Amino acid sequence: MEEIKFALDTFYAVMAGALVMWMAAGFTMLEAGMVQKKDVSEIVTKNLGLYSIACIMYLVCGFQLMYAGDSNFGLFPEIGTSWGLSTATEADPMMYGADGSIADGTFVGYYSHQADFFFQVVFVATAMSIVSGAVAGRMKMLPFFLFAVFLTGFIYPTQGFWNWGGGFEGLGISYSDYAGSGTVHLCGAAAALAVVTVLGPRKGKYNYDGSVNSMPGSNIPMAALGAWILWLGWFGFNGGSELKVSEVSSATAVSQVFLNTNMAAAGGVVATLFMSLFLTGKMDVTMAINGAIAGLVSITADPLSPSGGTAVLVGAIGGALVYVSILFLEKKGIDDPVGAISAHGTVGIYGVLVVSLTGGADFLGQLTGVAMIAAFTYIASLGVIYAINFVMPIRATDEEQDAGLDISEVGIEAYPEFD
Amino acid sequence: MEEIKFALDTFYAVMAGALVMWMAAGFTMLEAGMVQKKDVSEIVTKNLGLYSIACIMYLVCGFQLMYAGDSNFGLFPEIGTSWGLSTATEADPMMYGADGSIADGTFVGYYSHQADFFFQVVFVATAMSIVSGAVAGRMKMLPFFLFAVFLTGFIYPTQGFWNWGGGFEGLGISYSDYAGSGTVHLCGAAAALAVVTVLGPRKGKYNYDGSVNSMPGSNIPMAALGAWILWLGWFGFNGGSELKVSEVSSATAVSQVFLNTNMAAAGGVVATLFMSLFLTGKMDVTMAINGAIAGLVSITADPLSPSGGTAVLVGAIGGALVYVSILFLEKKGIDDPVGAISAHGTVGIYGVLVVSLTGGADFLGQLTGVAMIAAFTYIASLGVIYAINFVMPIRATDEEQDAGLDISEVGIEAYPEFD
Amino acid sequence: MEEIKFALDTFYAVMAGALVMWMAAGFTMLEAGMVQKKDVSEIVTKNLGLYSIACIMYLVCGFQLMYAGDSNFGLFPEIGTSWGLSTATEADPMMYGADGSIADGTFVGYYSHQADFFFQVVFVATAMSIVSGAVAGRMKMLPFFLFAVFLTGFIYPTQGFWNWGGGFEGLGISYSDYAGSGTVHLCGAAAALAVVTVLGPRKGKYNYDGSVNSMPGSNIPMAALGAWILWLGWFGFNGGSELKVSEVSSATAVSQVFLNTNMAAAGGVVATLFMSLFLTGKMDVTMAINGAIAGLVSITADPLSPSGGTAVLVGAIGGALVYVSILFLEKKGIDDPVGAISAHGTVGIYGVLVVSLTGGADFLGQLTGVAMIAAFTYIASLGVIYAINFVMPIRATDEEQDAGLDISEVGIEAYPEFD
Repeated sequence: MEEIKFALDTFYAVMAGALVMWMAAGFTMLEAGMVQKKDVSEIVTKNLGLYSIACIMYLVCGFQLMYAGDSNFGLFPEIGTSWGLSTATEADPMMYGADGSIADGTFVGYYSHQADFFFQVVFVATAMSIVSGAVAGRMKMLPFFLFAVFLTGFIYPTQGFWNWGGGFEGLGISYSDYAGSGTVHLCGAAAALAVVTVLGPRKGKYNYDGSVNSMPGSNIPMAALGAWILWLGWFGFNGGSELKVSEVSSATAVSQVFLNTNMAAAGGVVATLFMSLFLTGKMDVTMAINGAIAGLVSITADPLSPSGGTAVLVGAIGGALVYVSILFLEKKGIDDPVGAISAHGTVGIYGVLVVSLTGGADFLGQLTGVAMIAAFTYIASLGVIYAINFVMPIRATDEEQDAGLDISEVGIEAYPEFD
Repeated sequence: MEEIKFALDTFYAVMAGALVMWMAAGFTMLEAGMVQKKDVSEIVTKNLGLYSIACIMYLVCGFQLMYAGDSNFGLFPEIGTSWGLSTATEADPMMYGADGSIADGTFVGYYSHQADFFFQVVFVATAMSIVSGAVAGRMKMLPFFLFAVFLTGFIYPTQGFWNWGGGFEGLGISYSDYAGSGTVHLCGAAAALAVVTVLGPRKGKYNYDGSVNSMPGSNIPMAALGAWILWLGWFGFNGGSELKVSEVSSATAVSQVFLNTNMAAAGGVVATLFMSLFLTGKMDVTMAINGAIAGLVSITADPLSPSGGTAVLVGAIGGALVYVSILFLEKKGIDDPVGAISAHGTVGIYGVLVVSLTGGADFLGQLTGVAMIAAFTYIASLGVIYAINFVMPIRATDEEQDAGLDISEVGIEAYPEFD
Repeated sequence: MEEIKFALDTFYAVMAGALVMWMAAGFTMLEAGMVQKKDVSEIVTKNLGLYSIACIMYLVCGFQLMYAGDSNFGLFPEIGTSWGLSTATEADPMMYGADGSIADGTFVGYYSHQADFFFQVVFVATAMSIVSGAVAGRMKMLPFFLFAVFLTGFIYPTQGFWNWGGGFEGLGISYSDYAGSGTVHLCGAAAALAVVTVLGPRKGKYNYDGSVNSMPGSNIPMAALGAWILWLGWFGFNGGSELKVSEVSSATAVSQVFLNTNMAAAGGVVATLFMSLFLTGKMDVTMAINGAIAGLVSITADPLSPSGGTAVLVGAIGGALVYVSILFLEKKGIDDPVGAISAHGTVGIYGVLVVSLTGGADFLGQLTGVAMIAAFTYIASLGVIYAINFVMPIRATDEEQDAGLDISEVGIEAYPEFD
């Protein structure tokens, strides 16, 4: 029976991981649809590259950093960090946490080390994907990839350890964040904000008098496809974070998480659509897209405790928040072509804090957690991006931006036959 | 052992539900690709909104209406219909139908209530998605969403109860419809036809002499992506309708359903391609796309009984039917930009009736069922849409249509840099 | 317990099969994005048609040919090859290989015959998808579909039998190819090369002096979406090839395969991006896309033995290889619009050979295997395509190519409103 449970939970973990990996396609489509035509190939290339770099860096050092106290540290060679010196051909008969202990002493269920790594590695890629959207249209590619090396190899794992490796617990901070509204989404958004701080807005976004120019996305259905992909992938993101499906209680929890994840996204869409209708007389599709994502981010810190109806409300408030946040940041001179800082940052903070209401979490603990995650990630990222900018300018010149990053960075236009 | 079966079936149900949710992306892409460039943002917004409204309305009242006789009625608060007054943090240890009885007394297998709701809610969204395609290019958004409230909250559940809640059985009607060729697809198509009856064709579709103008889709590969997404999602739609995978018989049935679903779609594609070649000398890709969908709708009422070879034939006949039906409806003045009424309505009826041949169902029962579903849905939808049209005009003016619904309804063009 | 294992492995097989089916969408998007605007509808139609034909031909005769020695041959009617004379309504209580023997005497695990067929049929469609990319822009559709009939019904199964049906073993050749770097990918590429041999390059690709004209892809984000879809689908392709997940050893193996598949693709992307940067000063997105695919093909022959770090290296070398191979073939006058022959052929050979290093396979056996697969497929395909070309010209005329195959073959432009 234990063997079947091990098999079932491993199967579940890799399917959930595959769904989260699919979110990389979602970010790619969302960002490719939301940026201008001349920068599409570039954002696509960034997404392919950042995902790949995230996977490699997390394998090289990120996973170890994040789960430093893990008693399985000695087993890492089996998942490849020895760079080829050992293999896992001989299937490992040990069960993860079979001795009932990981860093913080909590039993997390049975599944293979490899499934654990696979499920974790796609999360770090998600965090990094948030950055690429915010810096679209004016950041050069090589420094972006360099930054990806530091964020995914060092910064994300360091703060990720606090929530999932036992860090907060060791510090006596009570922080509850089921699938990472703070640990993944806020982290990505704080890093994005740091880079944007150094990078500045796209040329042409702001006029000398401070007024804002609209720079509409080039391909709305593609952006919507991105939202749908993220929506689907999020079932793996939240559902997989239960880490187990093989018991009645965990299977029921998993299905509640799927249900709530779906309802929160629906709440976010409806809230933004009607907010847009009341405020502008029209239903803004880009707000609806961000509403879906905001709903998903909102429920990520606690997709298990609320009822479905509560999940709708949690998501709807997230949708309203992203609407306001996008307009506010744009006015404040923070250019974020896809609304990533609002959807993952502003709403990420809200998502963590609302667990005090939905899941009975300690409000002060939640607040301390988001403050630490945001501050550490922002400051560390700022340091890294300053250093990178010192070595090689991270901002494309005005001429390069005018011509489009597709030409200056990739050498290939996204839609060469469409004028 | 019972615990593992519960876990496995719940896991299966949420994976199948996730695949069906993915069909929302498929309808979005299909419709975005098949309408004109000026109406793409609008159809995308409609799809995001209708899916969200469907989920919320089914949570609020649809599920209860549909499974009114369900002995689990008292447990609804656990999946959220109490709007936040209760939670499911404490995983529910009860098994769905553990006492062997739902409304109609049939044992449906073990899995969580939440998984059951999640799998059901994505079906109602599918039905509503069918409507958006048929009304594309001339229906205003607010009345569309109002209609969605009524269809998904009341009309669909009412007739859905007949097949899956015990209604037909209570009336002594022998009706067999495994995954809903009638209950979902015909229902959606009948509602679409009702709305189109009031709405009329797009401006410019028909000339004064009754001749038809071609209004080709704006993005064929996007429409094809939609078809592929639907094809994939349909494995969840039909496969999940077995409701169980944890026994040798159910697992074998599930795999037969996957096999047949795939073969029927293949049959639909080949039939339409060669029909097009013989009739026009060319292979019409939009017919092939509708052929795939028609093949899938055809097999949905009985994806289990036929052999794979029979499934090809069932799908091929469905493909031929959709080809003829699209041309016929277009000629009759029924403007359906994506062919939804043909693919889901005409073929939905055929799909239910053909079960008499493939699955030995009672022909009269099948005929009575489709007649009741079509008549009730059409009449109820007609009443609702008349009432809505009385309060606010559902049809965009000629000027709005000329400018494109993207501008008048959404305020954002789908491809602003492409002229 | 055996029943649960049967259920779990069947569930796993159909989910893996669904992921592989999804690769059909990936090839469609990849090819639609990489060809010129005037040929997009046509390549989309080819992909819908070839997948459907592959499924039908494999049902009609391919599966039997490939597993001729299978003791279950007598049971084929149950999965439909009797074209409707029998059904599988009565779930088959027998377990596949329950007696421990298939053709080569290897026990392959428990799951239903239908799941086995479903998982196998999507592989043959993959092989055929490789051909459509290579012949894009100049091959007429009817001869293409005719060729699909022969490749999927006869040529692929014949050589597929060598690896998976016991053929190589019967010949005393030690050949190890876990998921088909050779059996699927090289086979598809060899067939593609044969067709291209007869077909010649697109009009306008080469000048009289032999110099090459760039014919850039029309929709880069769509091509990237294709790569992401393939990446996701490949988890099913490689992971499903373990054929079992219900034991600790197989579940662990499955998760190692998921991990390595992901890491190899990441390695391929990073290698091509930096190779492009060093050689051209820019990061070529089409090379990154092909790098991802090359990484995936590289690891397919042995995704189980290597550690994750080794998988990165295996994929990176595959990426470098595809880069060189694409430039080399283009120079040699072999026009391959999407780089399919390089990504699946050149890299497929490398993928099989590298198992000697990662998995300890016999180098001579691997070499013999790829030589036999490549030679047989190439020669058989050449014969078939010569014969087809004799009956009906396979090459579109210069005028048809200039107008675009969308107009001459499909009658529908892909983007009629975009000029």
